[in-house]
Amino acid sequence: MPLTPDQLAEIEAARATPRLTLRAVSEGMEAELYRAHPVLDHGFVRVIDYMGDDAAIVQAARVSYGAGTKHVSNDEGLIRYLMRHWHSTPFEMCELKLHVKLPVFVARQWIRHRTANVNEYSARYSILDREFYIPAPEQLAAQSTVNNQGRGAVLAGEEAARVLALLKSDAGQMYDHYEAMLSTEGQQGLARELARMNLPMNIYTQWYWKVDLHNLFHFLRLRADAHAQYEIRVYADCIARMVAAWVPLAFRAFEDYRMGGVTLSSKAIDCLKRRLKGEVVTAETSGMSKGEWREFCEVWG
Amino acid sequence: MPLTPDQLAEIEAARATPRLTLRAVSEGMEAELYRAHPVLDHGFVRVIDYMGDDAAIVQAARVSYGAGTKHVSNDEGLIRYLMRHWHSTPFEMCELKLHVKLPVFVARQWIRHRTANVNEYSARYSILDREFYIPAPEQLAAQSTVNNQGRGAVLAGEEAARVLALLKSDAGQMYDHYEAMLSTEGQQGLARELARMNLPMNIYTQWYWKVDLHNLFHFLRLRADAHAQYEIRVYADCIARMVAAWVPLAFRAFEDYRMGGVTLSSKAIDCLKRRLKGEVVTAETSGMSKGEWREFCEVWG
Amino acid sequence: MPLTPDQLAEIEAARATPRLTLRAVSEGMEAELYRAHPVLDHGFVRVIDYMGDDAAIVQAARVSYGAGTKHVSNDEGLIRYLMRHWHSTPFEMCELKLHVKLPVFVARQWIRHRTANVNEYSARYSILDREFYIPAPEQLAAQSTVNNQGRGAVLAGEEAARVLALLKSDAGQMYDHYEAMLSTEGQQGLARELARMNLPMNIYTQWYWKVDLHNLFHFLRLRADAHAQYEIRVYADCIARMVAAWVPLAFRAFEDYRMGGVTLSSKAIDCLKRRLKGEVVTAETSGMSKGEWREFCEVWG
Amino acid sequence: MPLTPDQLAEIEAARATPRLTLRAVSEGMEAELYRAHPVLDHGFVRVIDYMGDDAAIVQAARVSYGAGTKHVSNDEGLIRYLMRHWHSTPFEMCELKLHVKLPVFVARQWIRHRTANVNEYSARYSILDREFYIPAPEQLAAQSTVNNQGRGAVLAGEEAARVLALLKSDAGQMYDHYEAMLSTEGQQGLARELARMNLPMNIYTQWYWKVDLHNLFHFLRLRADAHAQYEIRVYADCIARMVAAWVPLAFRAFEDYRMGGVTLSSKAIDCLKRRLKGEVVTAETSGMSKGEWREFCEVWG
Repeated sequence: MPLTPDQLAEIEAARATPRLTLRAVSEGMEAELYRAHPVLDHGFVRVIDYMGDDAAIVQAARVSYGAGTKHVSNDEGLIRYLMRHWHSTPFEMCELKLHVKLPVFVARQWIRHRTANVNEYSARYSILDREFYIPAPEQLAAQSTVNNQGRGAVLAGEEAARVLALLKSDAGQMYDHYEAMLSTEGQQGLARELARMNLPMNIYTQWYWKVDLHNLFHFLRLRADAHAQYEIRVYADCIARMVAAWVPLAFRAFEDYRMGGVTLSSKAIDCLKRRLKGEVVTAETSGMSKGEWREFCEVWG
Repeated sequence: MPLTPDQLAEIEAARATPRLTLRAVSEGMEAELYRAHPVLDHGFVRVIDYMGDDAAIVQAARVSYGAGTKHVSNDEGLIRYLMRHWHSTPFEMCELKLHVKLPVFVARQWIRHRTANVNEYSARYSILDREFYIPAPEQLAAQSTVNNQGRGAVLAGEEAARVLALLKSDAGQMYDHYEAMLSTEGQQGLARELARMNLPMNIYTQWYWKVDLHNLFHFLRLRADAHAQYEIRVYADCIARMVAAWVPLAFRAFEDYRMGGVTLSSKAIDCLKRRLKGEVVTAETSGMSKGEWREFCEVWG
Repeated sequence: MPLTPDQLAEIEAARATPRLTLRAVSEGMEAELYRAHPVLDHGFVRVIDYMGDDAAIVQAARVSYGAGTKHVSNDEGLIRYLMRHWHSTPFEMCELKLHVKLPVFVARQWIRHRTANVNEYSARYSILDREFYIPAPEQLAAQSTVNNQGRGAVLAGEEAARVLALLKSDAGQMYDHYEAMLSTEGQQGLARELARMNLPMNIYTQWYWKVDLHNLFHFLRLRADAHAQYEIRVYADCIARMVAAWVPLAFRAFEDYRMGGVTLSSKAIDCLKRRLKGEVVTAETSGMSKGEWREFCEVWG
Repeated sequence: MPLTPDQLAEIEAARATPRLTLRAVSEGMEAELYRAHPVLDHGFVRVIDYMGDDAAIVQAARVSYGAGTKHVSNDEGLIRYLMRHWHSTPFEMCELKLHVKLPVFVARQWIRHRTANVNEYSARYSILDREFYIPAPEQLAAQSTVNNQGRGAVLAGEEAARVLALLKSDAGQMYDHYEAMLSTEGQQGLARELARMNLPMNIYTQWYWKVDLHNLFHFLRLRADAHAQYEIRVYADCIARMVAAWVPLAFRAFEDYRMGGVTLSSKAIDCLKRRLKGEVVTAETSGMSKGEWREFCEVWG
């Protein structure tokens, strides 16, 4: 259970007292506010605040286009038009603030998305909790033999058991030593900023993360993708469901044009055009490298 | 009057229908929402949306510092501590979205603040209105004779009258020609994206501008400063009053540490220490350049 | 002629004195350094400095992938792989610094690319030159009747002549009045920061603009595109030729995957797959909006 | 020794072949190029590339100010003026690319500086080396008793020995287990992206880090500060020495106005003015909080 009874009580209290506002309100997001969605074994994602809704995207676009925009008759059509033509600024007019609890090695990937605001729990200042990510057995995958950056088959019986045992005992031992170094019983206690270096990267940290909708879509496209590491993908999937509740029109356009879309190179366009004319195109006649051709065939057969 | 009756009616309608939310609410900002504050002769600033309040800054900071932060007993003390030590990330957790109408030459300065989101009215897409900034007589200042980047005395009688007449007649003529080039009566009409190039830079444009509180404070420090050009300073002053209503604790800390503060060089520190010991320090013995010494004396006499 | 004899002499002097360096050197870019390429009637682009080359992109990527990357045998293959999979960070390791002279209305579009560094000529501080963009007759296009944001047919005889005459005489008059307001003969002279507001947006300004290669590619994709306004596209085209000389492998990958590529929505993928199976897909059975279908047919017929 | 003989040979080879360039050259930085400066027990910093020099800062500033800038007669005066008045854009015209090897917990602090470009060694893709940061005995400090975020006295004999023993044996054991999980002898071997989670945060990683001079100064001001954690401060100190060799005029201005400077709040200004008039100001009459007063007295006695 990622949340303590105290935290649950706080959430219920925050949800119990609605207040009046004149701002844009997304009913879908109000239903989400503060509630923690469990991710992995001890992690969670929850919405702390949001700004804007589908109408806010449309409104910002209409400021840009002025009276000239009247011929796009409805909001969904305009939002799809913006997404299709990479007009990103209206999507930047919405903002989301999340509270996320996540393993450090996931946080290290996540933070590479620079256009966001972050307040992370400081292990220099405070003491981390004894919580580590231990993968579920079905996630204990072997190194891929075809892709340096991927997973292969799930580990079987004994090897899986051995890995799990190592991860668990190491995490426990490292945390024991962390506590032993910090302890001030009969000693001074090592500085927190030093003791933390002995903790493994599957320990959980937490942060507030604030991002605009355009950059959030970029994050989701990369991290909810099948090639992303499973442990960050589950966070992205969870956030994607929240975004669908928040800005349903924008999310549908994102699904159609980004998540479900592909980018074709000029070579790939050429191959498809030849195929459409009935030509049989092969790896050899495609002009593509092996890798490109393999990826092309994954989509087009 | 910067707003049309239609726009005023829209604002009243938007303000007439409060809705329930579970988010942080700033009463001071709710009172501001949508209302247009006139700036210059045809411009305005109005708040379209906001995220967070003073408590949200504190909350984000406490995520970072964890249990270790309990000894700072109150919110105002913590906010002042954050401001004093340049801990900017908690201030980034608040966000403000404004609708601004402003002359193009002001927009050109404003846009240099890159960490913000903008949707500007597109003169490529739509036709600009016939509205130009014509300075009030008391703003018709001469070029400063001591500062290449500043204003001197206000122009007197005839010279002022001549300047005003030129500005007014030129603006009118340029707009007449803009319309003449665009006109499709008996002709094709020049493309909007070309015709706009004939407009002077005191024509008004408008945009939605969204920024986080940290970057907004940076904007205000530079643009509400006495050395900023008057025509952007009045916008900054107007926004500063809104921020004071929105996050009063953070704004007071900003006023004390940034707007009302100064930065001393190591040479300036040295001079002050010598003065405190009773030494008479002169331009010659200060080790400063003429410019530095003049600026030092402006503060310290 | 956009350059004065003094400026040409400066350029020759700068090119006359090669120095030794241990840094990565791009021979293609060395040949470009400092030389001004004319753009529009008075504008130019020239390279002031650069950092990195194709090998620097590869080197940065190999730091990320470590020993695991050895199986991609050559530099071009690796660069194409990076481009195809949107691995943008190695491209960020190259940097370009340009000196650009351009009309203000072009500068206003350009500056919206925020991830770049800019030092613009200050009309607050100094006096602008009497140089205005007057379109060549073949660029005097009518407003498009199908696209709010585009150009239609070129204006013919009399209408073109009338527009040119207006642009020329207005520019001249506005500049005369600018000078008259600034003049200190027998008067104080209006402050520069005020007088500039009377200048039209086809006056030329100039700036140093520094950007990394990833963000430059993004700029080129949007601004060298057929839908970009002609007056910024000619700058983008000019810069594209420089980039081809600088990092030829990266530029070829960019051309293939970005400039010459297309993004397909999930609906478009579905339509193409149906076509590949021999089905006749129409606007009605495509599931697309009218606009999407039109754009789809532009590529696929 | 942080570098292998192969790496040293590569560095010597890179330094052995100077080439001709027309770009700005900083002799001070040429002497640094590629050479690794050891930091901590296994880390290093080395310069891979740079763009610009002191003259480039001046040149960019003169583009902005145009002919109006002639009255600032020399380069050093202009650079000091820019630094004093927070004119940051000319400093952004210089760029530095470093290769850094550093412990993960240091990398986690470092990466919070978002305005930079990074290519980090990927433990998803490749296998990390067996190298851990083990503090020197004089760095084994106790938790500060007055500052939650600081170090107190150095640990003495037995406690220090116990901490060192724990850090060393834990690092060794974790790395053994990392290898055991990855091993493909008689088993499939756990995916690298999973196995890495068992490594402690004192393991070394490495990256290419590219940043402009303005943002680098900001990094140095925060990280070369006495309140920064020792383990990142030694990197900042090392980089500061490189910057002094690269752009000596800019670095001197930075030292005077930023590193050696202080920011005074309006309350602090008031207290100093009262003192200059001979008044005795105490904590009680200062209007400051306890913390502010303590920090004020640290500077002013």
